[in-house]
Order: sequence, then structure tokens, then C-alpha cells
Amino acid sequence: MYNYPNQKKVQNQEIVDLNNGKARGMNFEDFISQANSYYNAHNIANIHKKPTPIKIIKVVNYKETIYNKSKITEAVFDKKSTTDYNGIYKGYYIDFEAKETINKTFNIKSNLHKHQIDHLLSIKSHGGIAFILISMKYYNKIYAIDIKKLLKHQKVLVTIEFLKEQGYEVNQTNSLYLDYLKYVDDLLERKSNG
Amino acid sequence: MYNYPNQKKVQNQEIVDLNNGKARGMNFEDFISQANSYYNAHNIANIHKKPTPIKIIKVVNYKETIYNKSKITEAVFDKKSTTDYNGIYKGYYIDFEAKETINKTFNIKSNLHKHQIDHLLSIKSHGGIAFILISMKYYNKIYAIDIKKLLKHQKVLVTIEFLKEQGYEVNQTNSLYLDYLKYVDDLLERKSNG
Repeated sequence: MYNYPNQKKVQNQEIVDLNNGKARGMNFEDFISQANSYYNAHNIANIHKKPTPIKIIKVVNYKETIYNKSKITEAVFDKKSTTDYNGIYKGYYIDFEAKETINKTFNIKSNLHKHQIDHLLSIKSHGGIAFILISMKYYNKIYAIDIKKLLKHQKVLVTIEFLKEQGYEVNQTNSLYLDYLKYVDDLLERKSNG
Repeated sequence: MYNYPNQKKVQNQEIVDLNNGKARGMNFEDFISQANSYYNAHNIANIHKKPTPIKIIKVVNYKETIYNKSKITEAVFDKKSTTDYNGIYKGYYIDFEAKETINKTFNIKSNLHKHQIDHLLSIKSHGGIAFILISMKYYNKIYAIDIKKLLKHQKVLVTIEFLKEQGYEVNQTNSLYLDYLKYVDDLLERKSNG
């Protein structure tokens, strides 16, 4: 077996029940990160969060110091050209963006940039699996929805009823972690059944 | 057709003949970036360089200024846990690391971290295509080689003869750009022929 970088972290980490209130202090991104660490460590999938794009303006060479490390002293956040997460699962290329809202509806325009939507549609055209993972905090529900299905919604504000109907709920009570790949399993099963 | 973020850049960019010396000033990474822009713009593949992982230490909120942008004033380079490039081509998950050397041999140990090798082997185990793109500057040759084939080499220093035999040469004179996906085409063709 190979040595996965995140393995140790997962083993030391208490797996929490998402719906039992034990997960206080963990945010949506932490749950996804925990799931990815679990997937990677158990050789289920290899999915990572892409680093935040940063435009470096000034770097100071700290070779003289005890740190022996270069230090960035000036940088700005760069525009994301793609999505937050990608990787591989069961031979499929997986690509998704994760968004959380405290509102009763999900605002497509304010949550997704045009180039991110274009990116996900391009992934689909190449045979990949492209979706949005939406945390509807007001309802304490998380949905995965295919990018094309989400765009079927003609209005900017997406209701929870639409997500229930067109999406897949992933925060099931019997999961020990945010097992969002269940959405992909469901997708592949429906695909193979025509 | 969708609007790809990089399309404009490619159209305005002079496509240079790699082997005719017109490409002065462009480095190895620029060539890969140019190829990826071309692939993306022409809907051939969707492959991106992952941003450099950075650990942000201090951020100053510049809301008061005319820039209206947060500014990072302290950060360090983080350890890469994966590889530089990934994406999708013909439905396949593609993952690779690009390395250049001016030496007569390619040093596996100094060019590849253990966790990067582990990452590429994991990608292969999930059904993806994982390789190293090596620029042997001394010979003015570029090779793509499957991670498992590279590791077959028992010694740390890989010779150009080994790369010629086990790898695939991608800097062909008839290419207008660094068409490294020809390696994947070759791989898929040999796969389908058993």
C-alpha cells in the first residue's frame, strides 16, 4: 500500500456524526476536506481542493535566516478560472464547486461566476462529472446537483423544492462523514440502467 | 459554443514552432501553458495548472483604498501534496508533473517528491492517466513517461536512452505547439490494440 499524505490526519481525527450536533466548529469546507481525506486514505477516490490562486508581487529571499525559506511579502487574491475541487473516482473525472447559503433560496448569480459554469459545462462535454455541492444552512440540508440540471432552473433564485426534485441529498443521518460521492454512485447507477 | 476564459489569449498569441528557435524567452512551463490554452480554447481537453499552494499568514483589508482589494502581506510557500497539472481528455482523468533539467540525466530523487509519486500511482490505481513530462534541455528533447515505467528504472539517474525506449517524445518538428496529448493518444491506441 502507498503512503497517502493525509492518512495520518484522518486516523487522528474524530469522525463526527453530521446530524448529531457534534460537529460544532467545523464549517462546510472542513466537512468536504474531511470526506476527501477519508476517500484518499481509504483508496476510494483521489479528490483535492485546488489551492487559492494568488498573484505574488514581492518575494523576499530568507536564505540568511534560520528559516531558510522564501517569504512572500506582497500578494493579492487572483480570480479563480475554474472550480474548487477536482479529482478521480471509479475512473471518472470529478469536478465541483461547493457553496453554502444561509438564505432560504440559492442565488445562482451571486454564488457562481460565468467562467465557473462554463468550466463545468466543458468538463461535462469531455465526459466528466460536474456538479455543485450546495449547503442550505437554513434547512440544514446539503444537495449535489448536476450543472446542467441546475441551469434548467430559469430563475436566479433556486428553491429547496427544486433542489429536492432535481438534486441529490447527501447529508444522510447514517453517514459518519459527508459522503458526497454517494451522489456520483447514484448518478452512475441511473446511467447504467439507461 | 461556450466562452472559454483563455480563448482570447490564445488567439492573440503567436503560435511558435518549438524547434525553429522562434520561441526564445518562453520557458518549459510557458509551452505547457500555451498547449493547455490551445486545448481548452479548441475544446480538445480541459487541463489546468494548479495554483501554487501558499500558506497565508497575514492579510490586510484594503477596503479604504482605491484598490478595494484585500492584500496579503505575509505568506510562505506551502508543500505541494499533489502534482502541477490535472484535467480531462477524451473522458480520461489526466494528471502529470512537468520537470526540466539541464543535466545529461534526469535525477528522480531531486525532481520528484515521494508524495508526488504516491499521488500519481494512486491516480493510476483509480483508472487515470499519470505521467511525468520531462524536458531534457541538454538534448533539446521532451519526453512523456508513465509513472510506473519511470519507476522501473532502478537507478536514481535516468538516461536519455531509457526515456527514448520507455517514454514518448513529444517535441516533434511538425507541431505548432507542445502537443503533449499525442502521448496520451499513443497510449490509448496501444491500449485498444491490447
